[in-house]
Amino acid sequence: MKRIAVLASGNGSNLEAILAAIADGRIQNARVVLVISDKEEAYALVRAQKHNIPTRVFRPQDYPSREAYDRAMIEFLQAEAIDLVVMAGFMRLVTPEFVAAFRHRIMNIHPSLLPAFPGTRGVADALAYGVKVTGCTVHFVDEGMDTGPIILQEALPVRPDDTVDSLQERIHALEHRLYPQAIDLWVRGKIKIRGRRCCIDE
Amino acid sequence: MKRIAVLASGNGSNLEAILAAIADGRIQNARVVLVISDKEEAYALVRAQKHNIPTRVFRPQDYPSREAYDRAMIEFLQAEAIDLVVMAGFMRLVTPEFVAAFRHRIMNIHPSLLPAFPGTRGVADALAYGVKVTGCTVHFVDEGMDTGPIILQEALPVRPDDTVDSLQERIHALEHRLYPQAIDLWVRGKIKIRGRRCCIDE
Repeated sequence: MKRIAVLASGNGSNLEAILAAIADGRIQNARVVLVISDKEEAYALVRAQKHNIPTRVFRPQDYPSREAYDRAMIEFLQAEAIDLVVMAGFMRLVTPEFVAAFRHRIMNIHPSLLPAFPGTRGVADALAYGVKVTGCTVHFVDEGMDTGPIILQEALPVRPDDTVDSLQERIHALEHRLYPQAIDLWVRGKIKIRGRRCCIDE
Repeated sequence: MKRIAVLASGNGSNLEAILAAIADGRIQNARVVLVISDKEEAYALVRAQKHNIPTRVFRPQDYPSREAYDRAMIEFLQAEAIDLVVMAGFMRLVTPEFVAAFRHRIMNIHPSLLPAFPGTRGVADALAYGVKVTGCTVHFVDEGMDTGPIILQEALPVRPDDTVDSLQERIHALEHRLYPQAIDLWVRGKIKIRGRRCCIDE
């Protein structure tokens, strides 16, 4: 049984999608055993509590540096024997030490077809650029900003009358389908990493 | 009747696709009246001759600078009353003066989902990056490298066993469908440009 920690800063709708996938068997042999946030007010924490999942808040202001912050989190995750760290709207860049401690065991989801439109404004940037196709990306986290090996991507057409909100809504729906798929592949050992390419071994 | 000049450096398969679209009525009220190349040996020139389309070679070595080269081409295109310049594997970056002379009347096709993987190695770069989705982009040419307003894009899944050749082949097939569509939209006046977004007015 793989032990998953979900890191979230906000609403936690991807957390909810992952829990639903575990509940209905789309992800087997894994449990979300911990939800961590950097924000006490994150609604993801409320969702976790509703599912009786232990939560923990790591407040940045309680630590002297990013390194100290991440080190505390690494120790806690290791003490909890976490196999996979799933970032679901976690709005902090992790340190190289965090990446090294969980190499190819940290996933993130991003609302664009990376490497296009990295960063915190993926949807708005894509819309402003005027792309006709965007989408969403699940990737392993490496030392860069949204640069790690890509596990899954799916495309979505931008509509002529799209706003950031309308486009975001469709991308969210895609995320909620794609993230559980990627986690399931990882749990079943179906992802082989060669250089920076992930080969899915279905 | 819109007068189109096609600029090509190589094989000219997109030229062939455009001529086929004109022949079978997918593009109406437009003719390719001129094919220009920077390379005497470009097979695109042979294709043009087979279709009785006048050709012209502008050899870079005959001009003292990029500016002089482009100025000669601008004068020729204007003398021929060209309405739309279609780049089909034309491997030169045009000068700002060229862009200004044919603002929003120069199209290019690129074998990736721009802004990802600009430049001359779009397919190989996408494959090496490990994306799961790529595609092709028709855009207006501006002063940058593959940065102009996007007219059409379409996505394509990357397969686990894809090589540069196999992926390129599928992208070419997509190009041959998408480029005539974009030209048809332009000829029918269906493309409205707002800032850097192209709105298709179907």
